[in-house]
Amino acid sequence: MDRRSFLKNSAVGGAAAAASTLAAPAYAQGRRTLTMVTSVPDGFAVFDDAAVHFVDVVNAMMDGQITIEKRAAGQLVGAFEVFDAVSSGQADIYHSADYYFGGQHPGYYFFTAVPFGATGGEMTSWYHHGGGKELHDELGEIFNLKSFFCGNTGHQPGGWFNKEINTAADLQGLKFRMPGIGGLALGRTGASIQNIPGGEIYQALASGAIDGAEWIGPFADERLGFQEICEFYYTSGMHEPGSVLSAAFNRDVWNEMTPAQQAICETAAYATHEWSLSQSNYNNGAALARLQSQGVKVMQFSDEIWDAFGVASDEALNEFMGDELFARIRASQEEAAQSVFNWTSISDEVFTRQRNRIKAG
Amino acid sequence: MDRRSFLKNSAVGGAAAAASTLAAPAYAQGRRTLTMVTSVPDGFAVFDDAAVHFVDVVNAMMDGQITIEKRAAGQLVGAFEVFDAVSSGQADIYHSADYYFGGQHPGYYFFTAVPFGATGGEMTSWYHHGGGKELHDELGEIFNLKSFFCGNTGHQPGGWFNKEINTAADLQGLKFRMPGIGGLALGRTGASIQNIPGGEIYQALASGAIDGAEWIGPFADERLGFQEICEFYYTSGMHEPGSVLSAAFNRDVWNEMTPAQQAICETAAYATHEWSLSQSNYNNGAALARLQSQGVKVMQFSDEIWDAFGVASDEALNEFMGDELFARIRASQEEAAQSVFNWTSISDEVFTRQRNRIKAG
Repeated sequence: MDRRSFLKNSAVGGAAAAASTLAAPAYAQGRRTLTMVTSVPDGFAVFDDAAVHFVDVVNAMMDGQITIEKRAAGQLVGAFEVFDAVSSGQADIYHSADYYFGGQHPGYYFFTAVPFGATGGEMTSWYHHGGGKELHDELGEIFNLKSFFCGNTGHQPGGWFNKEINTAADLQGLKFRMPGIGGLALGRTGASIQNIPGGEIYQALASGAIDGAEWIGPFADERLGFQEICEFYYTSGMHEPGSVLSAAFNRDVWNEMTPAQQAICETAAYATHEWSLSQSNYNNGAALARLQSQGVKVMQFSDEIWDAFGVASDEALNEFMGDELFARIRASQEEAAQSVFNWTSISDEVFTRQRNRIKAG
Repeated sequence: MDRRSFLKNSAVGGAAAAASTLAAPAYAQGRRTLTMVTSVPDGFAVFDDAAVHFVDVVNAMMDGQITIEKRAAGQLVGAFEVFDAVSSGQADIYHSADYYFGGQHPGYYFFTAVPFGATGGEMTSWYHHGGGKELHDELGEIFNLKSFFCGNTGHQPGGWFNKEINTAADLQGLKFRMPGIGGLALGRTGASIQNIPGGEIYQALASGAIDGAEWIGPFADERLGFQEICEFYYTSGMHEPGSVLSAAFNRDVWNEMTPAQQAICETAAYATHEWSLSQSNYNNGAALARLQSQGVKVMQFSDEIWDAFGVASDEALNEFMGDELFARIRASQEEAAQSVFNWTSISDEVFTRQRNRIKAG
């Protein structure tokens, strides 16, 4: 697959190409409201928190020049329709997780998370200093989007299960909610994978349509009440080591802004990324303790399970390696993550191990 | 020590109090240049990079309303004089490391780094979600400053030595550059500690005035050429687990800005914090490899040294516990760091260990 084939195969690509030839209305000097559509209901911890934070920060800096108004999933378009809506100009901005749009281009998987990929900190280094931002922009050009990192859930747990997962055999036939390449990989281990929006997971679990699910992490999951249904919570997962949320502007809307307005939106997105990543990390520990006090059993996958995930993840990623841009994004992100890890494993990690040892002693 | 005694003992406190009674010039609607003084020479990697990034981002968003002009250490005031200069109104903003100003108030140590304290990620969580920002503001009120996190060096190495450090005895009489409470702790182990500005370390090492020094990390240190003088580089240190750089505004200047201008400055500071932390983490690994190829020996301290640091650090911190605000800041930061660690140690850490194991296998 190359870019041209994506454009040809995508209604979005055609609409975007047509839209970009229209004369841009001049509103740089005026006041305008931009509509931002999201993929979750209002009030969803972490995910919607980041969207709200971004809107608040942009609006505060814009001083009335531009006001962003948020529309939650389903209010204007459905949770997974935000990409096409913004690409085509039906809405101005989306806030979402770009791996929902791996069907539009598999390169987008890397702009949320891929199995065994970059952690939140590694993602940030890659984006700002290792070429990630430029690759995000290259993808956006295909779809008439201008995208920025704008939130991060932090490392995501393996998820909620209604039984212990001790061997790869325990995954056979399990109906599980997991998006992205993580879901494709888990599917290869014998599980039956569904990708459903965050706002619909609880109902799917409660009705028995799925046996288990991953969503974000203890702080966000607790609010959705998964602990009422599932007993086992595996706290380190392979699939989303630091999931990025993105803000994506329709590129025509973006180009109509002044450079100062563009700088405000981009800077607000990055400030939101830091605020958001630190939110999950700050709150997850206490939330997990509360979940445990309600009877949730906190688990870690065995090495056997991790090994099975490793094989399946490689296979799932390799399926897309025929696409030049996918391969280039993968190489760039893996190199950055390795580079950061080479340093942090002999600095931060040694330090936290010593700190823990000395404080315990 | 209470706040009143700090004010009484500080020429700064008096000047700040006087300045705050003056009528504020109204320039919210006009165009104005603000002067930002820093504690390093122009072009210093990481430290000055963050200052430049902050200025560029603010100026881009301000669209000419306000322009920040940077003055490097020594151009307007000396490296360690920036605090008093901004507090008194001689300059408008400083960009520096707040632990240089522990003499003004020991609470400032926590807003860069303390030994066995918070890592970069833990610092960020504390600041945005655990009350750190509000405590920074409380300190700023004493000195007529409005301060924000605006850069982070990441975890700092133990530093450059001209001999191996195998036992605590090897630290006796060592003349070493280390600021902050880390320096006070190292002094308790028998080393002779100096705090000199970054721009003067190389000369001090080259002249033999000091035997060794820590500065920032491989990427920043390499540019200063410490590898020409010292053979041993200890890559994980106890003293600065994730050193924050701050932007501090004179509070009168701050109060004269519009809410939108204030939001621009604050948001730019946080975006700079993320950009900066990810810069060191991205570049340190490759820089360390280059240093090794030049003959630098990369070392880790033994448990015996770490234990000695642990005892000395506790003693050094406890010296200030008579100050109510210091004690409150310490408790707040330690609680946040522990809370984040409780989570990351069973999520990110388990993940990176498994990723490393599987990729190596």
